[in-house]
Amino acid sequence: MMKGVAYNQFAGRSLERLCALSDGVFAIAMTLLVLDLRVPAAAAIHSEGELWAALVALAPRMATYLMSFLTLGIFWTGQQTQLNQFSRADRHLAWIHFAFLAAVSLMPFSTAFLAEFIGYRIALLLYWLNILVLGAVLLGGWVYACHAQLFREELTREMDRAVTRRIVIAQGLYACGAALCVFGTAWSIGFIVLVQLNYAIAPPVRWLSRI
Amino acid sequence: MMKGVAYNQFAGRSLERLCALSDGVFAIAMTLLVLDLRVPAAAAIHSEGELWAALVALAPRMATYLMSFLTLGIFWTGQQTQLNQFSRADRHLAWIHFAFLAAVSLMPFSTAFLAEFIGYRIALLLYWLNILVLGAVLLGGWVYACHAQLFREELTREMDRAVTRRIVIAQGLYACGAALCVFGTAWSIGFIVLVQLNYAIAPPVRWLSRI
Amino acid sequence: MMKGVAYNQFAGRSLERLCALSDGVFAIAMTLLVLDLRVPAAAAIHSEGELWAALVALAPRMATYLMSFLTLGIFWTGQQTQLNQFSRADRHLAWIHFAFLAAVSLMPFSTAFLAEFIGYRIALLLYWLNILVLGAVLLGGWVYACHAQLFREELTREMDRAVTRRIVIAQGLYACGAALCVFGTAWSIGFIVLVQLNYAIAPPVRWLSRI
Amino acid sequence: MMKGVAYNQFAGRSLERLCALSDGVFAIAMTLLVLDLRVPAAAAIHSEGELWAALVALAPRMATYLMSFLTLGIFWTGQQTQLNQFSRADRHLAWIHFAFLAAVSLMPFSTAFLAEFIGYRIALLLYWLNILVLGAVLLGGWVYACHAQLFREELTREMDRAVTRRIVIAQGLYACGAALCVFGTAWSIGFIVLVQLNYAIAPPVRWLSRI
Repeated sequence: MMKGVAYNQFAGRSLERLCALSDGVFAIAMTLLVLDLRVPAAAAIHSEGELWAALVALAPRMATYLMSFLTLGIFWTGQQTQLNQFSRADRHLAWIHFAFLAAVSLMPFSTAFLAEFIGYRIALLLYWLNILVLGAVLLGGWVYACHAQLFREELTREMDRAVTRRIVIAQGLYACGAALCVFGTAWSIGFIVLVQLNYAIAPPVRWLSRI
Repeated sequence: MMKGVAYNQFAGRSLERLCALSDGVFAIAMTLLVLDLRVPAAAAIHSEGELWAALVALAPRMATYLMSFLTLGIFWTGQQTQLNQFSRADRHLAWIHFAFLAAVSLMPFSTAFLAEFIGYRIALLLYWLNILVLGAVLLGGWVYACHAQLFREELTREMDRAVTRRIVIAQGLYACGAALCVFGTAWSIGFIVLVQLNYAIAPPVRWLSRI
Repeated sequence: MMKGVAYNQFAGRSLERLCALSDGVFAIAMTLLVLDLRVPAAAAIHSEGELWAALVALAPRMATYLMSFLTLGIFWTGQQTQLNQFSRADRHLAWIHFAFLAAVSLMPFSTAFLAEFIGYRIALLLYWLNILVLGAVLLGGWVYACHAQLFREELTREMDRAVTRRIVIAQGLYACGAALCVFGTAWSIGFIVLVQLNYAIAPPVRWLSRI
Repeated sequence: MMKGVAYNQFAGRSLERLCALSDGVFAIAMTLLVLDLRVPAAAAIHSEGELWAALVALAPRMATYLMSFLTLGIFWTGQQTQLNQFSRADRHLAWIHFAFLAAVSLMPFSTAFLAEFIGYRIALLLYWLNILVLGAVLLGGWVYACHAQLFREELTREMDRAVTRRIVIAQGLYACGAALCVFGTAWSIGFIVLVQLNYAIAPPVRWLSRI
């Protein structure tokens, strides 16, 4: 009886390997996104003008590609910031982050789905659902780590709040963006990209950095 | 003569690189699984309702995707738990883990095969065979490491038993699951998913944690 | 208010994970390049001679493959040389390198585009634009790191100059190569490959090593 | 003038990142091999018997898959054994290993080519050429490292000989295997697989371990 317990007590403790697996999954998801940018067929192109037109026709896919790259960058930073505070992993933390990585590896699918059906609300909601799961699992991982005391140093109340606040506000903004699809999916996408650019660039503006 | 022996004595000793290679293979296998989720063709879809139907039609593939993600998560944890106990690798251990990684990299194929032929027993048995090979090689790696004394610290008898027990019981349960295919492959898949969820969630229930 | 600031102060600080993510993206980009080398269909081949002809027909793709492998090798070395000088990352540096990695992950697309439309100037200029973005972002990362004092040791004026000089001169040469496309894209490609070979081989010739 | 020299003196020195990049490329190459195992189309299959036949028809591809997995395992071990002896990298070593990685990333192509045209000598010779380049570049890296004194400890004459011997004998055996294609490609493949299994399993037989 103690034996089964013992296994779970020493299983999955390497934080380095969890980081390495995560970096691998993120790297592949970031690169697979680009597979959706398909080179036009040479047979249909007969002049520089036609090639230019074919390139311009790829613009919407390029836009969803960049939006998803931003999303993955934001969540990579979020996950790294968390894991960086921990002194060790345990098997539960590993499984929470597997769920996170499953959502990461679905991102190329959600992106391709949105690029193909950019005017459809279902495609937009599926994309948002993917972001929601990413945020929820990341928050879950943080709450679990607080509970299981995996931190390297004493966790300050300030840092706990900063991380929780960050995830909750970001998810609130993404939900607003998704809700905008009642006016049209273009409004949603525009709003979400603005939110993401704010997180990526982090402009030194007081009220923005409070978000 | 001594020279050939000498080569094998200093070859393949970096445990870090074996871990890094493994993380890479797992990360890619986890992400390739998702390539099987193909975006429906835009030409065939004319309304939100049709898009929803196309999305629902992807559900079986999504299910096999999640089952395989669980499988890979379980075996990643298993391998990591082992390698974490070792102080070094050697060339034999490296080759045992190459065999393990070959089975890991076959997982996307077995999964796609099962998703395509979900009602066929051969597809289910192939999938099970893949899991069986993963477990057998992992056990082989543990037995070899005991024999070659690669451990960081003194291996306790308790830990040895916990690891062996874990693999043997899990494989027994998977074999039961595979045997259920005489009643239908759905029974098999349902049983295997339940076993996997038990290992993933590790509910704090006494008799379950003994498994 | 301080809380938002606080989050950005401890976010994205792990240099090791930024390196690991970068190595993953480079490794995949390098390997995806090869997916463009498609195996000819067996049905169309009936003799060793026909197979040889089919292999020879792959030569232009092989050439663009090698050129892009050189490009990725040059920029991997460039990024590694920079990151190797830093003692830590911060969130801004992380985002600058995400932009860099986005350009890296576009390289297989630009390469496939150029291979498909090797005689078209637009394809060549797109490829050059990709290289230009890689160089510009790398330079931006260096300038930012100087500003944010991320260096491990005192940055010598000599080293600062060497890095800046290297990027600026290389980009100048690539721009010359791109400009040669007014005479034909073959001139551009030939010139760019020569520049790249110089950087790869680094022949011990005085005036060349000044470049 | 000194500046250009200076850049090459501090460029590309991180051995860890060279290892990480290599592990990434090997992991992807190993996993891409499997993409060649295509799931048969469901429309053509109507019974367990037909599915079994379709599976059996995949056997030759499975064989080339396993052969290439062995090849990659052998060269991964070879590269790791070398890099493990070095205390640092430099830019020349980095470029030698880029050439090595380019050959690694071509392996999935060579393998798919051989699987598609398994009876053609050109396909076999291309595959052998790939192995030859891998071996030659690895030997080149070793010779360069001896010359540039990158070793962690004093290199013993015995170790130098063991590494050189290993590569030269292995390449000699592969060349014999390739030469056997005058009798038929099956002879070549069989011989090469036997050689590889010897290196993978390293049976404790005196005259075999001298190879």
